[in-house]
Order: sequence, then C-alpha cells, then structure tokens
Amino acid sequence: MNCTNTLFGWSRDVTCSGIWRRLSLFVLASALCSCPCRAEDSAMENIVTEKKAEESHRQDSADLLVFILLLTLTILTIWLFKHRRFRFLHETGLAMIYGLLVGVVLRYAIHVPSDMNNITLSCNVNASPATLLVNVSGKFYEYTLKGEISGSEVNDIQDNEMLRKVTFDPEVFFNILLPPIIFHAGYSLKRRHFFRNLGSILAYAFVGTVVSCFIIGLLMYGCVMLMKQIGHLGGDFFFTDCLFFGSIVSATDPVTVLAIFNELQVDADLYALLFGESVLNDAVAVVLSSSIIAYQPEGDNTHTFEAMAMLKSFGIFLGVFSGSFALGVATGVVTFTKLRDFPLLETALFFLMSWSTFLLAEACGFTGVVAVLFCGMTQAHYTFNNLSPESQERTKQLFELLNFLAENFIFSYMGLTLFTFKNHVFNPIFIVGAFLAVFLGRAANIYPLSFLLNLGRKHKISPNFQHMMMFAGLRGAMTFALSIRDTATYARQMMFSTTLLVVFFTVWICGGGTTQMLSCQKIRLYSGFLEQSCLMMGFLCVQQIGPDGVERRSTKQESAWFFRIWYNFDHNYLKPLLTHSGPPLTATFPACCGPLARCLTSPQAYENEEQLKDSDSDLILNDSDITLTYGDITVSTDATGAHTSGMPVGRVAVNSDEALDRELAFGDHELVIRGTRLVLPMDDSEPPLPLDSRLGPSSIMH
Amino acid sequence: MNCTNTLFGWSRDVTCSGIWRRLSLFVLASALCSCPCRAEDSAMENIVTEKKAEESHRQDSADLLVFILLLTLTILTIWLFKHRRFRFLHETGLAMIYGLLVGVVLRYAIHVPSDMNNITLSCNVNASPATLLVNVSGKFYEYTLKGEISGSEVNDIQDNEMLRKVTFDPEVFFNILLPPIIFHAGYSLKRRHFFRNLGSILAYAFVGTVVSCFIIGLLMYGCVMLMKQIGHLGGDFFFTDCLFFGSIVSATDPVTVLAIFNELQVDADLYALLFGESVLNDAVAVVLSSSIIAYQPEGDNTHTFEAMAMLKSFGIFLGVFSGSFALGVATGVVTFTKLRDFPLLETALFFLMSWSTFLLAEACGFTGVVAVLFCGMTQAHYTFNNLSPESQERTKQLFELLNFLAENFIFSYMGLTLFTFKNHVFNPIFIVGAFLAVFLGRAANIYPLSFLLNLGRKHKISPNFQHMMMFAGLRGAMTFALSIRDTATYARQMMFSTTLLVVFFTVWICGGGTTQMLSCQKIRLYSGFLEQSCLMMGFLCVQQIGPDGVERRSTKQESAWFFRIWYNFDHNYLKPLLTHSGPPLTATFPACCGPLARCLTSPQAYENEEQLKDSDSDLILNDSDITLTYGDITVSTDATGAHTSGMPVGRVAVNSDEALDRELAFGDHELVIRGTRLVLPMDDSEPPLPLDSRLGPSSIMH
Repeated sequence: MNCTNTLFGWSRDVTCSGIWRRLSLFVLASALCSCPCRAEDSAMENIVTEKKAEESHRQDSADLLVFILLLTLTILTIWLFKHRRFRFLHETGLAMIYGLLVGVVLRYAIHVPSDMNNITLSCNVNASPATLLVNVSGKFYEYTLKGEISGSEVNDIQDNEMLRKVTFDPEVFFNILLPPIIFHAGYSLKRRHFFRNLGSILAYAFVGTVVSCFIIGLLMYGCVMLMKQIGHLGGDFFFTDCLFFGSIVSATDPVTVLAIFNELQVDADLYALLFGESVLNDAVAVVLSSSIIAYQPEGDNTHTFEAMAMLKSFGIFLGVFSGSFALGVATGVVTFTKLRDFPLLETALFFLMSWSTFLLAEACGFTGVVAVLFCGMTQAHYTFNNLSPESQERTKQLFELLNFLAENFIFSYMGLTLFTFKNHVFNPIFIVGAFLAVFLGRAANIYPLSFLLNLGRKHKISPNFQHMMMFAGLRGAMTFALSIRDTATYARQMMFSTTLLVVFFTVWICGGGTTQMLSCQKIRLYSGFLEQSCLMMGFLCVQQIGPDGVERRSTKQESAWFFRIWYNFDHNYLKPLLTHSGPPLTATFPACCGPLARCLTSPQAYENEEQLKDSDSDLILNDSDITLTYGDITVSTDATGAHTSGMPVGRVAVNSDEALDRELAFGDHELVIRGTRLVLPMDDSEPPLPLDSRLGPSSIMH
Repeated sequence: MNCTNTLFGWSRDVTCSGIWRRLSLFVLASALCSCPCRAEDSAMENIVTEKKAEESHRQDSADLLVFILLLTLTILTIWLFKHRRFRFLHETGLAMIYGLLVGVVLRYAIHVPSDMNNITLSCNVNASPATLLVNVSGKFYEYTLKGEISGSEVNDIQDNEMLRKVTFDPEVFFNILLPPIIFHAGYSLKRRHFFRNLGSILAYAFVGTVVSCFIIGLLMYGCVMLMKQIGHLGGDFFFTDCLFFGSIVSATDPVTVLAIFNELQVDADLYALLFGESVLNDAVAVVLSSSIIAYQPEGDNTHTFEAMAMLKSFGIFLGVFSGSFALGVATGVVTFTKLRDFPLLETALFFLMSWSTFLLAEACGFTGVVAVLFCGMTQAHYTFNNLSPESQERTKQLFELLNFLAENFIFSYMGLTLFTFKNHVFNPIFIVGAFLAVFLGRAANIYPLSFLLNLGRKHKISPNFQHMMMFAGLRGAMTFALSIRDTATYARQMMFSTTLLVVFFTVWICGGGTTQMLSCQKIRLYSGFLEQSCLMMGFLCVQQIGPDGVERRSTKQESAWFFRIWYNFDHNYLKPLLTHSGPPLTATFPACCGPLARCLTSPQAYENEEQLKDSDSDLILNDSDITLTYGDITVSTDATGAHTSGMPVGRVAVNSDEALDRELAFGDHELVIRGTRLVLPMDDSEPPLPLDSRLGPSSIMH
C-alpha cells in the first residue's frame, strides 16, 4: 500500500527551512539519547497496539464490504432489469440510487462516534513534509502526508468515523478507476463508422468542447458576479474557476444513452458520432482543465488576464495533448506480440502494456488517461490483429469486466458522496445558473457546429440527429472524477456539489428518457430487428460488396479526402509493418527501398498476398456480436475469420481505393439469411441501390 | 487510496491521555486564532505545493513503471522458455532472478539522494494516533500513521529515496496478492483425485504441518541457544519466535514442481497429494502462525510456558480455522446465480462474491485467505455448475490471469527485496540451522505420516512418491508474505532474511531439479503422451466406464469410507439443493418430507431425472484441457457437455453407489481415439482390467 499510496497521494512538500531542519535533527537526537529501555512495558504496549490494529483492520474490512455488497446488489438488480427489458433506468443510474440510499443510511442512521484512541493530535511546526517522524517516548512512528484540510474540517474530522472511512482519496478515481473505462472506450470504438465520421467527431470533440467550456465559463462568471452583487457568495470565485467548471462539465459520458442505442440498434452513424465525440471530449476536457489550472499570470495579481500566461496555457494544452497522443499511439504500436501460443501470457502482456502506457504518460508529465485512450485505439487497430483468437476474446472480456466494475463503482460512489461528503456548498443561484449554462453550452456546441459540418458533409447530420445529440449530452464518470479531484477551496466545493446534481439529473432524466426521445425524434431503429433475428438463428451476418464495385460511388462520397490519404498510408505502410495482415511492404514500397521492405515484412504477409486479409482489422465488432453461445458450445469468431473466408481469393488490392471502398461498404447494407437476400435502405437521401452482391454462406458457422 | 490505505494500514493506535487531548485542542485552537490571512502568499505557496506534488507524482509513476516493466520482461522470457520447452527454470524462479537484478541496480547503481524538501521532521509528542494534524503557519495538514520505525532507521530513511519507494506495505501481499492465488488454487483443485486422497491430504496438511512446525521450532530453539552461548545473537529470540518461524516455513508452495507435473502429466494421485497438501497447509500455516502470535501468558514474564495460554492458542487455532472454513463454504454456496443470460454479470458477481468472502472473514476476525480457499473449493464444486458455459470460461480465465500476475509479482518482489530491504540480518549459524531444520521438518512430516497412512490405504503411497513429496517441499509466496508481514524486531528480521534464502534455494534448486528427480525416482509419466497426442489431433478425450460396472471393484477399494458417507450426502442432498444437477430432492428425501423437497427442487432437476447429469460437477478439467483452439474458431466445452452426451440416457442413479463408482472411474483408464481403444495400465498393483467400455465419439468435436 505504501507504494501506491505515495504514488497517488499527491504529497504536498513544502520547503523546509534550514533552521527547522537542524532543530528537528536536534530534537531527534535528544530523543534518541533520552529513551529509557523498558522492555516489559514495550511488550505490553505492543500487545495493546496489535489488538487495536486488528480492531481497526476489521472495521476497515467491514467498510469495504459495504461497497462490495452495494456492487453486488446493483448487479443483481441490473440482471432483473435486463431480464425484464426495463429500459427506463440504466445500471449506472441504478448504481447511483443504491449509492444514495447507502449514503443516507451512513449519514443519518449509523453514527459511529470517533474512537477515543483515534484522537487527532496537533503539533505546531513550520512545514509540511511528505514524511513525518513522531517521537513517542523514545519510539519513532512514521507518518505520511494525506493532504491539507480546511480549518472547518478540523473539528469535523472526529465527528463521524464512518463517513470519514467511506471517503476515498479522489486520486483513486483518476488513477485507478478511470483508466480501464477510457481504455475500454478506445478499444471498443466501432472503427469503421468512427473513421467515416472522423472529421465531424474531431470537430465536436475539439472545437465543440472548447466552445462549450468558454460559453459555460462566461455564463457562470455572470452568475457569480450576480451572486457577489446580492451577497450570496461565501468565498472567492475567480474567472479561472468558472472556466475550470466549464471544462469539467464539458466532458460528456452518454454511457446510458449508448447502452440503449446498442440494444435498439440505432443508426450506426449517430452512434459513432455520439460515442466518438464523448470518448474524445473526455480527453480534451482533461487536458483543458489542467491547462486552465496551469494559467498563472506573473506578478502580484494572480487572477488578471495576461496574454503570455494565456499563450502558455494554450501551449500546455497542445503539448500535453499531442504528447499523450503520441505516447499512447507509440505504446499501442509496440505491443507487437507474437506469443500466439500462450493466450494467458498474451492477455497479461496486453494488460500490463496498457497500464505501462498510463504510468509512462504520468511519469513524463502527460495525461495518462488520454494516452490510455489512444493506446486502446491503436491496439484495437493494429496489435489486436496479431493476437491469437483466444487471446482476443480473453483480452476483450477482461477489459469489459474491468470497465463494468469501475463504472458501476464510480456511479454508486457518486450517489454515496451526495450524503457523505462533508463540505457540500449548495447554492441555488449557482445551481440554476449551472443547469442553464450546461444546456446552453451543449446547444452552442452541437447546433452551430452541425450547421458548419453539414456544409461540407455529403451525408448530412439531420436535425433530429442534432436534437438527439443535444439530448444525449449526459455528464458522468469523467466530470465527477475531475470535480472531486480537488475540493479544497470554496469555489471547488460549490462546483463539486453542483456537478453532482448535474450528473444525477442528466443520467436519470436524459438517460431515462432516451427511448421516448428516440421515438419522438423518429430516429429509425434500422437493422436491429433483422440483425437480432439473424443472431437468434445462429448466423453471423456479414455484409459484403460485390466485386463489381457498384457501391463504390456512394462510399466515395461519404469518405472525406483527408481520411482517404490517411487510409492509403495506413493500409499500405502501417498495417503491413505492424500487423501480419495487409499487402507485403515489398509491393507497396517504392522499388528503391526493396531490401528494406523485404526486411520489414513478416513472413505471414506474403501468404496474405494471395488471400487478401487487410480489411479484417478495420471492424471490431462488439462482444455481443462476436460470441454466440449455444448450449454448451461457445462458438466464437472475429471479423478476420468471417471476412477472410468471404473475400475473393486471389485478388490483390494494392490499389487501396478499391480496398477502401470494399471496407467501407462492408457494412450494413445487406443481410444474408440462409441464402435469402434482404436489401435494406440505409440512407434517407439515396434510394437503395440495386446491389449485385455475392452471397456469403462461407461465413456462416454453427 | 484513503480507504484502502486505512484498510490495510494496520494503524497502530496508542491510547492518548486526556491531558494530551486537551493540550492538543488548545494548541489547535490557538493556532486557529493566530492564523494571519495572507491570501497572496498562500496562493504562491499553493502553486509551489502543486508543482512539488506533480513532481512527486511523476517520480512515483516511474517507480511503479519499473515493476510493470519487470513483469513484462518476465512474461516475454517465460514465453521464450515455454517456446523452447526449457524446464530447468520456472517462471517464478525467473521472476526472482529479474527481481534480484533490478534490486542490485537499485541498491548499488542508482542513488537518488533524498530531496531536501522531503526532509523528515520530528515532533516530540506522547502518543502515536492513527491520524495526526500538523499546523503549518495556520494551515492544517493531515498525516496518517505508516508504522513504527526503529531508531537505526531514522537516519537511513533519508538515505536512498529510491529504495524506500520500491518498498511495499507488507500487508499488500497478504490482503491483495495472496487471495487471488489461494482462490485460484482452491478453484482448480482436480477434485476427483483430491477427494479420493482426501484422508491422506488432510493428514499431511494438518498433522504434517503441525509436526513440521514444532520440529523446526525445536531445532531452531536449539540453534538459537547455541548462538546465545557463543555470543552470536544480537537481540531477543524467544521460543515463540522459533515456533513462529516453524509455522511460516511449513507452508509449502510447489507451484514450480506442479507446473512441470502438469506439463509432463505425472501420476494424478501424486499430483493430487502434493497440490492438495500444499493448498491446505497454507491455510493451516496461516492460522497456526496467528495462534502462535496470540500465545500470551499472563503475568510478568511473557515468554514462559503456561498451559492456559497454550490451550487458548489451541482454541484460537480451532476457532479461526473452523470459522474461516464455515464462512468460506457458506459464501461459496450462496453464489447461487441464475443470471445465465448475462456472462458479464455472472463473472462480475462471482468475482465480487469471492472478494466479499475475504472481507467478511477479515471483518469477523477470521482469516480471509483460508475463507477464500474454501470459498473457491465450494464454488468449483457447486455454484460453478450453475454458470452458463461462457461465464465458466470467463471466470476461470479471469482468476487464472489474476493468479498469474499476483504470483509473478510476489516472486519478482522477493528477488528485489533481497537487496532493497534495509534491515537484513544474515546470521550464518541461523541460516545453516534453518536449512537443516526445514529439511528435517519436511522429512518428519512426510515419512512417518506416509508410513501410518499406508497402513490404512489400499493404494499405497510408494517410497518414490514419498521421496518426490519430500523433494517438492518448496517454499513460496505464503512463506514470504507471512515473514514480511512483521519485520519490526531483531528476531523477525533474521527470520525474514533466512526465509528469503530458503525460498530462493528451494525454488531454484528443488524446482529446477524436478525433471531429474522424476526420472531418478522412476515415476511414470503416464497418459501424458497419449493425452497430448489426442489433443493435437483435435479431440477431447473422455474416458468412460461401461454400464456393466466392471471397474467398480477397484474404485471401491480406493475410496475411503468417510468419503463415501460424505459423497452420498453430497450427491443426494447438497447438489440437488445447490445446483441444477443431481437427482431431484423428491427422489432422495424421505417420503415424509415430500412437500419440502418439492419446494426446494429446481425445475431443471426434474429434467435431469431422465438424463443423469450429476457427475459433471465432480471433475473440473484444467483450462488446457477445456479450450481447444483451431485456426480462427475457438471450440470450448466443459466436462458437462462432454460427459453428459456420453452418458447413457435414461439411467437414473439415485442409488449413489453406482454413480460414485462411475464418477470415480470416469478417469484416466481409457483413451478413445477415433474409435481405436487404448487400454492403459493405471495401477502397479493391479493388472489392467478387461474394460468393456462404450466408445464415446459423441464428445468428439472439431
């Protein structure tokens, strides 16, 4: 615990003056000399100490047990809800409710008075070092710094032992619980739709989040000014605080909405837009908030505007973001495993590499969460294909479980903390202002950007999609983790309390109303029914484009030019280099680089030259799509197997335009059921094309 | 981190006198009043503090990264070894070597001088509370107790920052890393062979461990007396310390040996004896050591013999052991999941229930590790069968991964700590004595007990088996965790250093020499070759006994009478009650309890009445047996599927003797390969019986 504690403890070291050092050494030395050796006494004391330690250990185990049982209860209820197809309350919302209930009980029903032995001493020194030695009648005890506490807390700290014990160090959320969630998000991006909408997603995530942050910041500053005028403000609240608030509530987390989308098989583009935006804007919000904290004008007045400091903050934003991005991509790429024979080792290696990414980023001063996100995306795109099929499944299941547990834990802790957190500052004006600002900030993000994007998009983002995206701007785990990270000042406390309410409202009201909103906005639930019935019948439905390339026209329209450039580079150089799939480098490199290309190409790639195998990696299906369970036999496959077998053998697609089209078309246009062709209209604007696709029974397996 | 920290931190609370309390409150109050508000200064100070915190956080991330990279390196090398079939060094031995190397580097190559800002203050107070408030010019900082440090360490503590940072709280091992290892052990007991040798295993584990503990304790006491005579003893070393040493080094951990056994398919009975003994003696050793610590004679002289204290210790042993056992079994049984449709939820629930068991046991004052062991065994026996096949695989893989990571982490930390631990006491006489005592203690455990057991066993434990068991008495994770738990006194430090050497020696020398020892002892590697070739050919070989029951005679001889009684009860009442398998309770309950039986029987059990399905649960195969991977398709099955399909439909075996025999015979006697029958002699004493078994092609799958 020591190491993890010092790791995440944010120990605050204050420079200790030389005088104090000498003084402390003197005290220490004199204490050493004056220590009388009373062996018997110390033995008895040891026994007492052991007893107390045991008692405390028991109590702590019981406290942690509360959380575990809370999670267990949540799981059981989720099962009930899933079983009954009850969609009004998502598991995260449920976890919050249970958390709230337990919080109420802990707060009002159970009152564990502070143990007399746990009394807090105060010793008046001049510095707060990370480690403190305390000399108790000749014996030295080592203390580690936990953090600063406000004066008002000093008396509170002994008030209710139970409340203090169920309070986690905020850094736990940021350093332990968030990484698996973010990694899993990056890992499970449905990449085909993601890349097809890459431009829009990036616009929403970067421009949108920054716009939202500043709109919310400005509105909140107005609100705070108003509060100051009418004397409702109980402490400092600077403009940077307002901006900070803006950045933390700009991180959307539509996990509830997406779960329903997934269940109802809502339009894949809408899904990709929402999911991609929410995943990336988490990353943007983290870096943005840390840049805002880093805004420090020089001179006396620390809260004025200064161009240099502003530029520096902007530089920090760019530097940290690109650094984290590069690091995540780099470590994602180096997980170039060839341990195909030992799934356990592969999975362990994958897990450790993801964790290393986080730690490495933190050690380099970048943002671990962002690095982990891009590491997950890179691994899904490249290195995942090098894993053996069993490892692929294992790895996915592992991250799925970690994500599930972490997410539910965070949400139940959120509920709990509404009652157990001691320094809530609920200010009605601020809360009303915040809700308004969050609403307007989201609107200022979605509508203008969608308008601008639609100017460039062939496949427009329709108004009902825009309304849905507006509605789906839930706030979740990231917002909470960012707001609980520092609750030392009055401003931060008020932000934290308000943020909690925003999360509760959006998860329960917006999350619960998703189904209603979908039907109200008349968003098609396309292909869901058919896909499900397909799955029920034991088929894995794959959709293919025929070799005649009729579909090429429409996909070409959809894909953006910069995506095309990137794709060509990726397909011809990166994939062959980093995975065993794709065309061999000898075919794609210029002739002059022949020897180098031969050296870098893996032997397997030559085999692939005959059987084109490159598009496998561009579509990672959800777990639910991948594993079909029938009776006692689990048949699992991945896109590789299904798609490879369906591809025309002997076709080499070094000309990547062709491959790109096939890949992009390798989509939702056609469903094959036991030789019966079902043509499904996918696009409103385009009439269904007469597709002359070959049937793919080769990918049907039982 | 706060919660986990207080949970495992063993905070030592010393009663604080009332005077001190009032004094501290006075100091606190006066400090509050005298605090001058200097906002600007505090802002600047905050910035400095944040900077330092960030720096420290980075450093900590880098430190943890060392461990992760160490594990990654271990995994890569393990893969190389497995790939080359290099059996002289097991992964745990390898992890230790890497740990040693890193330890050397940290110790001698890198010297990070203590940061001037990290300077340790000393404040002379009269008590050591769990929480300490420090008043630094008006600001309060909260400190938590880390533990007592000896006077000699006070100067050392600032010596090498790096060494201090790579030192984990010992409780981490006991509370975080050991539980998954122990749970996995309980979970993966090959239960048929385990139950067949239950009597012997219990004898070795209970009687053997206690004998070994006392023999080692007595020998070490002699050794200590000798050292005292010649003046080689630098501190107190009481008889209880010797016994404690005996108990911790009595926990064997033949993970290295068993890995080789598994690979070479060594005799299943020998495997069961060794594995069962090592799993159970871990539990015994934990409880034994805590009972020895609890031995406290009343009166002045705390280190004399006293019958009452002895009895009390014995009572504690019995109480804690049976309590932990009951609790583990109880929670194992209540994991009565019916969430068959949602593998993720099932796996999460299973994981949380195992963890709850640990916490609940600790909260009740029992031993979490022991409870987790029996929880794992119970879950494997009963509740595992209620899981859906996908969940079964997921759950197994999850625990396998956790076990793998925890084990390798512990062993690499063991290597590391040989150089990074600051208070090693290497005493040549003690070390030589300890090696001798460990050897003699093991001998006094195995040989006399085997002799006694052979008097009652039909299927004798042959001398070469005994030599192998003697040789396989490696010391591992449990011994290490117990010895590092408390290194406060001179005696404990010497024990810790010696234990490390014992672990190194046994893992490297005994572990490395297993293959040689096996061939030297002429222990048959039976069925391994055939089973492997079976697997290579893509078949799952199941061995069945024919309906004529020819085999019944021999299995009856082997099974002990008390096992038979237990089995009948288990088969007729427990399994139908707790799983969906087995005969319905209505058939096994007496007629008078008809309504109750109907109420308790699950609907599925009636279906099973036709298709006898009970023996499925008695054999959990290893993962390696269960999942066969061919190309892109993972075909997985469990004993259920294979066996059920092979069973004669329509036979009801309420008469459980018959079922028992079938189950016990459902073993390694016959291998079916594509219709060719291979009869393999299993027992030396018995000539191969002319088995008239039906071939089971129904369980062959591709």
